[in-house]
Amino acid sequence: MRLALLGCGTVGAEVVRLLHEQAADLTARVGAPIEIAGIAVRRMGRDRGPLPVDPALFTTDALGLVKRDDVDVVVEVVGGIEPARTWLVEALRSGKSAVTANKALLAEDGGSLHDAAAEGQADLYYEAAVAGAIPLLRPLRESLHGDRITRVTGIVNGTTNFILSAMDATGAGFTEALEEATELGYAEADPTADVEGFDAAAKAAILASLAFHSRVTAADVHREGITGVTAADVASAKAMGCTIKLLCIASRGPDSTGADSVSVRVHPAMIPRTHPLASVGDAFNAVFVEAEAAGQLMFYGRGAGGSPTASAVLGDIVAVARNRLAGVRAPSESVYADLPVRPMGEAVTRYHISLDVADRAGVLATVAGVFAKRDVSIATVRQSGRADDASLVVVTHGAPEAALAATVEELRGLDIVRSIASVLRVEGGA
Amino acid sequence: MRLALLGCGTVGAEVVRLLHEQAADLTARVGAPIEIAGIAVRRMGRDRGPLPVDPALFTTDALGLVKRDDVDVVVEVVGGIEPARTWLVEALRSGKSAVTANKALLAEDGGSLHDAAAEGQADLYYEAAVAGAIPLLRPLRESLHGDRITRVTGIVNGTTNFILSAMDATGAGFTEALEEATELGYAEADPTADVEGFDAAAKAAILASLAFHSRVTAADVHREGITGVTAADVASAKAMGCTIKLLCIASRGPDSTGADSVSVRVHPAMIPRTHPLASVGDAFNAVFVEAEAAGQLMFYGRGAGGSPTASAVLGDIVAVARNRLAGVRAPSESVYADLPVRPMGEAVTRYHISLDVADRAGVLATVAGVFAKRDVSIATVRQSGRADDASLVVVTHGAPEAALAATVEELRGLDIVRSIASVLRVEGGA
Repeated sequence: MRLALLGCGTVGAEVVRLLHEQAADLTARVGAPIEIAGIAVRRMGRDRGPLPVDPALFTTDALGLVKRDDVDVVVEVVGGIEPARTWLVEALRSGKSAVTANKALLAEDGGSLHDAAAEGQADLYYEAAVAGAIPLLRPLRESLHGDRITRVTGIVNGTTNFILSAMDATGAGFTEALEEATELGYAEADPTADVEGFDAAAKAAILASLAFHSRVTAADVHREGITGVTAADVASAKAMGCTIKLLCIASRGPDSTGADSVSVRVHPAMIPRTHPLASVGDAFNAVFVEAEAAGQLMFYGRGAGGSPTASAVLGDIVAVARNRLAGVRAPSESVYADLPVRPMGEAVTRYHISLDVADRAGVLATVAGVFAKRDVSIATVRQSGRADDASLVVVTHGAPEAALAATVEELRGLDIVRSIASVLRVEGGA
Repeated sequence: MRLALLGCGTVGAEVVRLLHEQAADLTARVGAPIEIAGIAVRRMGRDRGPLPVDPALFTTDALGLVKRDDVDVVVEVVGGIEPARTWLVEALRSGKSAVTANKALLAEDGGSLHDAAAEGQADLYYEAAVAGAIPLLRPLRESLHGDRITRVTGIVNGTTNFILSAMDATGAGFTEALEEATELGYAEADPTADVEGFDAAAKAAILASLAFHSRVTAADVHREGITGVTAADVASAKAMGCTIKLLCIASRGPDSTGADSVSVRVHPAMIPRTHPLASVGDAFNAVFVEAEAAGQLMFYGRGAGGSPTASAVLGDIVAVARNRLAGVRAPSESVYADLPVRPMGEAVTRYHISLDVADRAGVLATVAGVFAKRDVSIATVRQSGRADDASLVVVTHGAPEAALAATVEELRGLDIVRSIASVLRVEGGA
C-alpha cells in the first residue's frame, strides 16, 4: 500500500512519525505494509527536524507525485482551496483513495471532491477535518444511519474555546484573553479565521452535510465571531447560571412554509452550566448530537494539534488501505435528502437582553409591549436598581431570529431605553 | 434485504417500529428496502402493543427462521448465552450477517461468534452491546486504528450510575438509593447483575478486546460491585473534591516481568469532580479513551432503554445491509496483539484510606512505616480530631494492588488502629 503525502508541516511530520513508529501494528491491522511513495513540500530546504524517512522521497512536484502509477493513497495535509483541490480531484478521478484534513476546501467545494470520488470510484475520507482526533464523522456517517439526527451542537474551535474559558474563569475582556491565547500558542498571529468564526463555520457545513444527508456549504452558514463578546456579557451569563461558548448549531426542522429544512449557524451563545457542553474547557472540542431514537450523545476530545490530527488521518489511512485491499469502497456521499437551508431569520433562537432603562412607571409595560407586538414570548424578566441605575434583564422563549432582531431594534429606539448592555442568544436550555 | 428478528421485547419492538417509520430513509441509505422476513418469540400470545407488522410473521421456531434461505440478516435481541449462541453461530456459519446486542454472550464466548463469522465470511456487528446508543465500538474498531489506545475508562452501567449519583446528591445510603432506582424503573427486581458489576464486567471485556486487539473474556475481568459503598465513603469522596463512580478500566502496560499486557477491572472508585466522567449523571453512560496520538477522548450518551438500543441496532443493520449489497464484509475480529491479561494484584491503582486511630504520639510514624515497608508511596495524609476521635486519611500514589491490599490488611491488625472507616480506589487524578 503506497502513499503520497502532500504537505509536511506539523500534522504531516507527525503522520510520518506515526507511520514509522507503529509500522508493525499498522501492517497487522491493514493486512499489508504501508509505505511512503513520496512527500510533496513547497520548499525542499526547510528544517523539519529528524524524520524517519529517506530524504530522497521529498519533492516539490505534488501533482507529479499524485499522478504516479505506484501511488495508491493520497494524503493531503496542506490546507487551503488551491492547489489542494486540483491535487485531490486528480487523485480521486484516477481511482486513488484520498485522505484529507482540509475543512476549508470540504466546506467551500466538497461537491467537487465527492463528484471526483464518484467518477473514479474512489474513497474520500476526512475525519481530521472536524474536531481533530474525535471520531465523529464515522459515527455520523455510519453508526447513526439507522436513526434520524435532529440537531448537532458543537464546540469545534479550540482557540475561541480557550479564549471564552479564560474570560469565564478570570473575568478578563476579549482582547486580554486573546493576548494570553496568542502567547500560549493557542491563537495564530492572525486569529481572524478562528475569532470571526470562519473555521467553525466550515466545520458546521461539513457536520450539517453528514447529519442531514444534504450538501451544505460554508456560504450557507450564518456566522458571527466572538470579538463582540464583552466581560459584561460573561458576567451576565454567570448571573444566569450560564457560560458563553462559540457554538456551531445545525438543526433540522420546518421552514416558514412548513417544509423540512436545515438551519446552520455559528455564533456565541449562553448555555446553562449544567449542560454537558458547558464543562468543555480550554482548547478541547465537543460535539453534542441529538437523534430521535438515540437521544443525546456527546463526543469530546482534542480538536487540533499535530498528534491528535495525525491520529485521525492515520485512522482514515488504515480504513482506505483496507478497503483497497478488499477491492471495495466506502459508502459514497449521502445527499439523498437534499434539504434546503433556511435563512437565519427563520432560525428559532432565544435571546437574553440586558437593558439600562429609565426608572419610570410603565417602563416594563412598554418594553413588554414591544415583545408582544412581534409575538415574542417572554420567559423571565428581572428588574433591578433605582433612579438612573435601573436595569431590565429579559429572557425570551424560542422565536424566529428575525422577530427577535426586530424587537431589539425597536427597543433600541425607545426613549425610555438608555442603552442595551448586552444581547446574547441562549441555547441548550429547557 | 430480508431480516430475521430474534426477540420482540422492548428493544425488538422498537426496532420493528423504527424500521417501519424510517423505511424511506433507510431504503435511501442502504440502496434497497429492508423487509422483515420473520420475528421469533418465545410465546405467541403476549401483548406487544400495536406493531406495524403482519402478525403472520411471528413464529416460535427461531432456529427454523434463522435457517430460511430468504433471510439475509439475523438480528438477535433476546440476550443470554443459550439459545442465542446456537442461533447466531448457525446464522454466521451459513454466511448470514448478524447484529446482536448480547453483551453477556460476547463477553463470555465472543470467540465462538467471531470464529463462526470467519467460517461463513459473514459480518458480526454489536454496537448496541456496550453503552447502548453511543457510537463507540465502531470508533474503537475503525477510527482509532491508526493509533495506540493505552486506557479505556468507562461508566457503562446506568443503574449503578443512577444509584451513585443519588447517593452523591442526597447523602442517602446504598439501600435507600437502590429502592429509589427500583421505584423509578432504573433497577430491575433482581438488581444483582447491575449492582454486583457483572453487567459492567461483560462490557469491560468487550471494550478491552477491541481496544487492545486481543481476546478478553468476562472471566478475565476483576469485578467488584457497589453494594459495599457507604454514605460515609461518599462523604469522604466529597471532602476530597471527588465523586464515586462504578468504573470499568482497561489499560495496557507492562506486567511484573515488563512484558506488554492488559489489565481489566470493574470497581467503584473516587474520581475528581473536574474529571469529564464526574459530571456523567443519572443513568447516562460515558467512556473515556486515552490514546497515544489522539490524547483524551470521551463518548457520552444513553446506555440503555428501548429507543437508544434500537438506534444502535439499526445503525448496524444499515451497515451490514450495505456490505451485503456491495458484496463485501467488514474487517474481521482483530486479535493479532494477543496480549495476556495480568492478575489484579499487578494492576497499578491508588488507595484512599480513612482510619480511626488512637490519639497517641507516634501513630503517624507507625502507620507511615507500614506503607513504606511495601514500597507504597503516600501522596497526602490528613490527621484530625483529638482523644478518642482521632482520624487519619491517607491517599497513596500509584502502587500494585497486591501491595496496597496487603498494606490495608496490616493496618487493620495494628492495635493503634481502632477501625478502617473506608477504603476506596482513586482514579483519574494527576
